Amino acid sequence: MKNILVALPVEQRHKELLEAAAPGCRFTYVPAKDVTAAQAADAEVIIGNISPALIAGAEKLRLFQLNSAGADAYLKPGILREDVLLCNATGAYSKAVAEHALAMTLALQKKLPLYRDGQRQHVWRDRGGVTSIADAVVLVVGLGDIGTHYARMAKALGARVLAVKRRPGEKPKEVDELYTMEHLDELLAQADVVFSVLPGTPATEHLYTYERFQRMKPGAVFVNCGRGSAVALEVLQRALADGLIAAAGVDVTETEPLPPDSPLWELENLLITPHVAGDYHLPETFERIVAIAAKNLALYLEGKEPTTIVDRRTGYKR
Amino acid sequence: MKNILVALPVEQRHKELLEAAAPGCRFTYVPAKDVTAAQAADAEVIIGNISPALIAGAEKLRLFQLNSAGADAYLKPGILREDVLLCNATGAYSKAVAEHALAMTLALQKKLPLYRDGQRQHVWRDRGGVTSIADAVVLVVGLGDIGTHYARMAKALGARVLAVKRRPGEKPKEVDELYTMEHLDELLAQADVVFSVLPGTPATEHLYTYERFQRMKPGAVFVNCGRGSAVALEVLQRALADGLIAAAGVDVTETEPLPPDSPLWELENLLITPHVAGDYHLPETFERIVAIAAKNLALYLEGKEPTTIVDRRTGYKR
Repeated sequence: MKNILVALPVEQRHKELLEAAAPGCRFTYVPAKDVTAAQAADAEVIIGNISPALIAGAEKLRLFQLNSAGADAYLKPGILREDVLLCNATGAYSKAVAEHALAMTLALQKKLPLYRDGQRQHVWRDRGGVTSIADAVVLVVGLGDIGTHYARMAKALGARVLAVKRRPGEKPKEVDELYTMEHLDELLAQADVVFSVLPGTPATEHLYTYERFQRMKPGAVFVNCGRGSAVALEVLQRALADGLIAAAGVDVTETEPLPPDSPLWELENLLITPHVAGDYHLPETFERIVAIAAKNLALYLEGKEPTTIVDRRTGYKR
Repeated sequence: MKNILVALPVEQRHKELLEAAAPGCRFTYVPAKDVTAAQAADAEVIIGNISPALIAGAEKLRLFQLNSAGADAYLKPGILREDVLLCNATGAYSKAVAEHALAMTLALQKKLPLYRDGQRQHVWRDRGGVTSIADAVVLVVGLGDIGTHYARMAKALGARVLAVKRRPGEKPKEVDELYTMEHLDELLAQADVVFSVLPGTPATEHLYTYERFQRMKPGAVFVNCGRGSAVALEVLQRALADGLIAAAGVDVTETEPLPPDSPLWELENLLITPHVAGDYHLPETFERIVAIAAKNLALYLEGKEPTTIVDRRTGYKR
């Protein structure tokens, strides 16, 4: 009998959904932090982000379904065998993360973090000019599910939306212009808003150099809800302290949690949220994760290919 | 020769636009704060919000074109003669104010002010669940130009939009349901987001009582970008301190500037901006104001009715 280990905070309805997808299998439900080496070693399917150390010892593992979009923790050498199917939960987070990114974008355009600071000091002080999303050229770097959702919203609010992705492809209706990554430098110079939502891979590490911030417009707003590794802490600090752009909002930082003594905390023109855009903060996110897991589980058991297989080289959905 | 007094920070192109609308008239350009009693007394047309005391002495005045949407300062007894045409700049601010209100709405839904507070304390701390504009029932109270612009954006982001206005009328395409003010109480109970953008008139003063905040959903977000008089300071303070709703954002307060010792500053679930949503913070706002003034000036000189006449009883556009 196939052992399926579910390391997610499931309720009864989620169990019913998963078990209906895998008749005759044995299910074990355990919180991710409580999974034992024996449980991991015995499972053919693991659903949920358990410790990478346990994955390294999961000898019978054939299908590993993440509850995250990012897979970086499991892509390091020696963790996951090449023959294990690795699936992510891409799509489940798109609404939550894209809305968080849009909220950050508009807040920065309207200087709301500065007004919050003034409020805390009991100061009624005008901070001057603002910008408009309706007039903005928005550049989405990384056009997956989250980037596409964000692009759709920005366009609905009147923005002109440019996007870059790794592979050439047909332009989806959510964007006005689509490019590949080699055009990044020229596009950065045109954008009023840069929304970056790249996975953490060797190719995206430290992508945003000081020189690339110099290419951006002085009035630009930069938002990162992908992985913190895309910008070195020191580069983000210098670019903002030097005023290369108007403001930035980051839900991710190169080191997480950001250390209490980081100079980033004190930058007036940087808004930091502690990697909370996704998580299960929108209730429907978790429902979507379970639905993806159930679908992939059924496909795997039928000998078909699951829908959200991660390409180990890129960290993206294949 | 007709004297036209322009108390706006005009540039050459604005002067040309205004003078083309009024051939043969004598134009005087002076900053609003520098206008003399003699200049005001001599003008048949005044463009720009000069001191109400000077308006009271403007004996030759026939057309008074405001650069604001609100007219409350001039509607008090003894300021403006009944026979003077009073026009506002409704429409000029709709984009700026509606976008500011949307930025506040999303920031509150995603708890960005709380994360800003955490940032100032160098604390990487998750603040839990958030809500989504796409799932929200949004109630717009006051469906003028600003309310309609906000409604259009909220709907484009997926919200279901209800609106109330004074007078019954045909439902515009920007909203899903339209009601008159007597339905306010039942609608407040349905809304996840309440956006209020009412002018300051006797009818709207203290409209939002403590009891009305009690009718709202505990998870609701309330945003006021109309006039502060719609909510008594003490009611806003108690409603938020008592947690009747999740959070509020106000660009206007009953007393402005808000005094440094007001308890409102310290409320974690209140975001305060110092009456900056409009102003000239979006450059195109001023362009729109001059365009409205030029159009109304031409209509007046042709003996026709200007487009944005204020109804003295309601404070709204007629």
